Amino acid sequence: MDAPMQTSRPDRSLLTAHEARLACRRGEITGSTAGLAPGHVQANLAVLPRDLATDFLLFAQRNPKPCPIIGVSAPGERRIPELGEDLDIATDIPGYRVWRNGELVEERRDVADLWTDDLVAFVIGCSFSFEAAMVEDGLPLRHVEMGVRVPMYRTTIPCRPAGPFGGPMVVSMRPLKPADAIRAVQITSRFPAVHGAPVHLGLPEAIGIHDLAKPDYGDPVRIGADEIPVFWACGVTPQSVIAASKPAFAITHAPGAMLITDRRNTEFAVI
Amino acid sequence: MDAPMQTSRPDRSLLTAHEARLACRRGEITGSTAGLAPGHVQANLAVLPRDLATDFLLFAQRNPKPCPIIGVSAPGERRIPELGEDLDIATDIPGYRVWRNGELVEERRDVADLWTDDLVAFVIGCSFSFEAAMVEDGLPLRHVEMGVRVPMYRTTIPCRPAGPFGGPMVVSMRPLKPADAIRAVQITSRFPAVHGAPVHLGLPEAIGIHDLAKPDYGDPVRIGADEIPVFWACGVTPQSVIAASKPAFAITHAPGAMLITDRRNTEFAVI
Repeated sequence: MDAPMQTSRPDRSLLTAHEARLACRRGEITGSTAGLAPGHVQANLAVLPRDLATDFLLFAQRNPKPCPIIGVSAPGERRIPELGEDLDIATDIPGYRVWRNGELVEERRDVADLWTDDLVAFVIGCSFSFEAAMVEDGLPLRHVEMGVRVPMYRTTIPCRPAGPFGGPMVVSMRPLKPADAIRAVQITSRFPAVHGAPVHLGLPEAIGIHDLAKPDYGDPVRIGADEIPVFWACGVTPQSVIAASKPAFAITHAPGAMLITDRRNTEFAVI
Repeated sequence: MDAPMQTSRPDRSLLTAHEARLACRRGEITGSTAGLAPGHVQANLAVLPRDLATDFLLFAQRNPKPCPIIGVSAPGERRIPELGEDLDIATDIPGYRVWRNGELVEERRDVADLWTDDLVAFVIGCSFSFEAAMVEDGLPLRHVEMGVRVPMYRTTIPCRPAGPFGGPMVVSMRPLKPADAIRAVQITSRFPAVHGAPVHLGLPEAIGIHDLAKPDYGDPVRIGADEIPVFWACGVTPQSVIAASKPAFAITHAPGAMLITDRRNTEFAVI
């Protein structure tokens, strides 16, 4: 009469942020973190040697829209308590990239054995947070509708340099009808810690984008005749800035494999 | 040895809002109120017979962006205490227009002798308030730079009708560089009681505007190749809606001759 025991995989979207991090740590989650721990901030990672940390912090302070830092580890520390009680920055992301002298040398599922007292981890806000607020408001996200990556473009907007870090701002683009674009400005303005308001809209040529159909990163998306392109500062900016500075050693997250934090997106709304 | 007495005209911009109203009441100020009582809300006037008041209030409630009511008199009353301690709506505006059956029949400097117990006065917010906030932030206003009236256009955006009141929204247009347009959305979003955020930007054809050089009201302005047109709901909308409904009797302010209130622009900022 006994029913057979079922050992089905639990619904990933039902995991708490902490459970999702533990599942990543155990290697049970690989690849993209999209859809995990809904409502919680997912973030970019950049790990640098201590001697570059001050310049990178200065770069972020001078360029808060493309490089919004939401957490920093103490040198050598793998914990960042303000982002999660039990959070290990060297194991809790499902995919890492290791860089030497600006070259990608390895992809890994954890970087615990590479960690040294010399490293500082920077956690950088990501557009997932403001996109969640847009979706909540009923605004369409074309790249999500199309099931592709958001299109991203290098611009002629210069970042303010700091030490070895500098270069052009990278932007992501979402096409919207004008009234929706205005609403999107209002919504994303509430989230300055996760890129905030757009930096540009309409007139792509004015920021050095000559062909919207050919993004520098991500995938092209359809733009309706009744839509305008709206551009937000993008977290790819610090990644490209770090790569261009060719640090002896660096670690980043792998694309789409983000750090899931205990912080809620709504905590980052200023009003 | 006595110096001759000088009876110079005082600097108009130094008058308080109350003093400016009294000067209007005495007929010492005629024509435009631009520049008077800086920092204080100037507003549009619409006076209607009591039997139309409910429908007009309903129209305003349904169309708050083009028709933001900031004060209403009790039927027959000429005072609106919430807008000014000593404020007589029938005398304190430097120019009035009298309408019968939708036709402009007279311009006058006061309408005290036309006032009856049947009239209700509606005071409607005006773009001067959000323009002050834009200027304060360093954003350029092309029509001010050029010394002309802001260009205004009838659109294909329908107002939500109420009783006899309905018709298309009229918008004002200010050309801005994209980053300034984004800032202007943020700034004017703070002022929902004075038209608030833009209703449209870029793509004038999408709201039925086929030639920006030919506004339906006001004057054309220069638009740079690096600028986009930004459109705000305009207080001309209720005026045109009232005219189209051909009420037996109505009074409005004359163009540019606004009601100067004791309220400060900053009071209308929601944050």
